[in-house]
Amino acid sequence: MKLHILGCYAATPRTLTNPTAQVLEIKNHMILIDCGEGTQVQLRKHKVKFSRINHIFISHLHGDHFFGLPGLISTFRLLGRDKELHIYGPKGIKEVITLMLKLGDSWTNYPLLFHELTSKEPELVFEDEKITVETIPLNHRVYTNGYLFREKLGERKLNIEAVAKYKIDKCYYQNIKNGKNITLDNGELIQNEVLTFDPATPKSYAFCSDTSYLPQIIGQIQKVHTLYHESTFLDSEAHLTTKTKHATAKEAATIALKAEVGTLILGHYSTRYKSIEMFKDEAMEIFPNVELGEDGKVFEL
Amino acid sequence: MKLHILGCYAATPRTLTNPTAQVLEIKNHMILIDCGEGTQVQLRKHKVKFSRINHIFISHLHGDHFFGLPGLISTFRLLGRDKELHIYGPKGIKEVITLMLKLGDSWTNYPLLFHELTSKEPELVFEDEKITVETIPLNHRVYTNGYLFREKLGERKLNIEAVAKYKIDKCYYQNIKNGKNITLDNGELIQNEVLTFDPATPKSYAFCSDTSYLPQIIGQIQKVHTLYHESTFLDSEAHLTTKTKHATAKEAATIALKAEVGTLILGHYSTRYKSIEMFKDEAMEIFPNVELGEDGKVFEL
Repeated sequence: MKLHILGCYAATPRTLTNPTAQVLEIKNHMILIDCGEGTQVQLRKHKVKFSRINHIFISHLHGDHFFGLPGLISTFRLLGRDKELHIYGPKGIKEVITLMLKLGDSWTNYPLLFHELTSKEPELVFEDEKITVETIPLNHRVYTNGYLFREKLGERKLNIEAVAKYKIDKCYYQNIKNGKNITLDNGELIQNEVLTFDPATPKSYAFCSDTSYLPQIIGQIQKVHTLYHESTFLDSEAHLTTKTKHATAKEAATIALKAEVGTLILGHYSTRYKSIEMFKDEAMEIFPNVELGEDGKVFEL
Repeated sequence: MKLHILGCYAATPRTLTNPTAQVLEIKNHMILIDCGEGTQVQLRKHKVKFSRINHIFISHLHGDHFFGLPGLISTFRLLGRDKELHIYGPKGIKEVITLMLKLGDSWTNYPLLFHELTSKEPELVFEDEKITVETIPLNHRVYTNGYLFREKLGERKLNIEAVAKYKIDKCYYQNIKNGKNITLDNGELIQNEVLTFDPATPKSYAFCSDTSYLPQIIGQIQKVHTLYHESTFLDSEAHLTTKTKHATAKEAATIALKAEVGTLILGHYSTRYKSIEMFKDEAMEIFPNVELGEDGKVFEL
C-alpha cells in the first residue's frame, strides 16, 4: 500500500499549499480520496498515473475537498478516457456535477457512475476480490464520511521446498494456495500448513477528515495500520473546534491511542500556523508513532 | 490600464500552464475576466490584490473558463469579505454556484450578485462614471460573450499657467475641468480651450475568447486600443476550428487588421504546441503589432 499526499491543508489553496487530496495505491487499485481545487495539477506534478484512477471517494461537499472534481472529470474526457469512473460522495454530488457538465454541454464520453451516500451508520460501499471500503461517519458541519480501506486476506504462500519434497504436481498449486490439504498417490494426507506459509497480514488505512473529536469511530478503526486524522488546530486553539467541528493534534493522537493504530498521519492543518512541526510535537506527547502529512509526500504503508 | 494575464492556455490546467483568467485594471476598477481552475492561486502567486476585485466577467461555462470561480467565491468568504461581488456570465451560472454553496452550507457573508446574460446582441452590462462594459457575442460551442471595456472621456486638464494668468479662483476649477467657459469680473469671456488641455484619449480593451473566426465583431471592436483574441490553433490545424469553434492565429490577426486595433494579444493556445512563438510569427504575417499572452505577463496598455 502506498499513500500519495497531494494536499493536506485546510480551507483555501495557496501558492505553496494545497487543499485535501490523496491517492491510495492498494492491491492494484489507484484510489483518489477527496479532490480539492488544483488536484489535477498536483497529480501531474507528482507524476501519479492518474488515468489509472477508477474510484474517487469524496468525504464531504466543502470546497476544499471537492472543487477540483469537475475539472478532473473534464480532463479525463479531454484525454479520451473510455473506462468507467466511480464517484462516491454525499447526496447532491451527482446533481452538481451533472449540472456543470450540462451547462458546458461537455458530457463525458466515458461512463460516470455516482454512488451517493446518505447513511449515518458505517456501510460497505465497495468490495472486490482484494479490498473492501467502508464509510466512517464523521461529525462535521455538513454530512461527512471518512473511509476505511482494507485489504482482504490473500492466498497462502507456497512453500516451494515442501511441495518439491513431496513431488506435488504444479496443477495442485492453486488449490494449495487456497488452503486445501493434499492426498499423495500413496494415500498420505499432507496438511496445508506443511505446504504453505501464512499470507501477508492484510493492511488497512482509515481516512478521517473533516471531523470534530469523535470517540465513536474508535471501535470501527481499531488496530488499523495507518490512520490519517485531521488536526486543523493545535490544542491552544481548541476553543475553535466547537464551532468549526474540527479536531486538534492532541485529539487526533487520542483517537490513535485509543484505537491502537499502527501509525497516525496528521493533516488538514489550518493555514494560520507558520510551521507544522508543532502538530507532531503535540501529538507525540500522547501517541508515539506520528507522521506529518505534507503535500507531495509519499508513505509506503 | 493594466492587464495581468493569469492563464492563457486552452483545455486543462497543467504543471506550468493555466486556463483562462486575467485581471484588467481600469480607472480604479480591478476586474477579473474568466476564472479557470487555479485562478485564486495565480492571483496570489502574481501578487494581485484580489480583495479589490468587485466585478467578475465570465465568457462561457466551459470548465477552463469558470471552474475556479466557486473556490474564489469561497475564499472571499473565508477572508472575511463584506463588499458586494458582481458576477456577469451566461444564464445558469447563478444556479450552479448557488447549488455548490448550498451543498457545502457555505453561504457567503457578503452580497453575491449575479447578472445573467442571454442576449445574442451586444449589450451594455456595466456603466459608471469612468467606464462602460459591453458584451461581444461570440460564436462557440456554447453561449459565449467576449467583453469590451471602454474608459469614458475624462475631465479636461487644467492649464495651471492660464488660470494663474487670469487670476481665476480655485472654486471655478471643477467647472472649468467640466468644460465650462469663464466670465471674469471685468466681463471678459474666456473660452474653456484657453484654460484647459484635452483629456487623455480614453482607452479600450476587447476580450474575445472563445470563438471561431467571426467577422461580425469587427464593427463593434473597431479601433480598440488592445484586442485579446483567442488563437487556439495555428493555420496548419485550421481544419480543427470548424468542429471546435475556435480560431487560428492567422484568423485572430485578420480580425485585428480589419478592426484596425492598436495591439493584438494572442492566447488560449492549444497545449499540443511545444512553443508559442509560432503563433506570433503566423499572426505577424498579417498584422504587425502582435504580443503573445503568457501566464504571469503584465501589459501596460
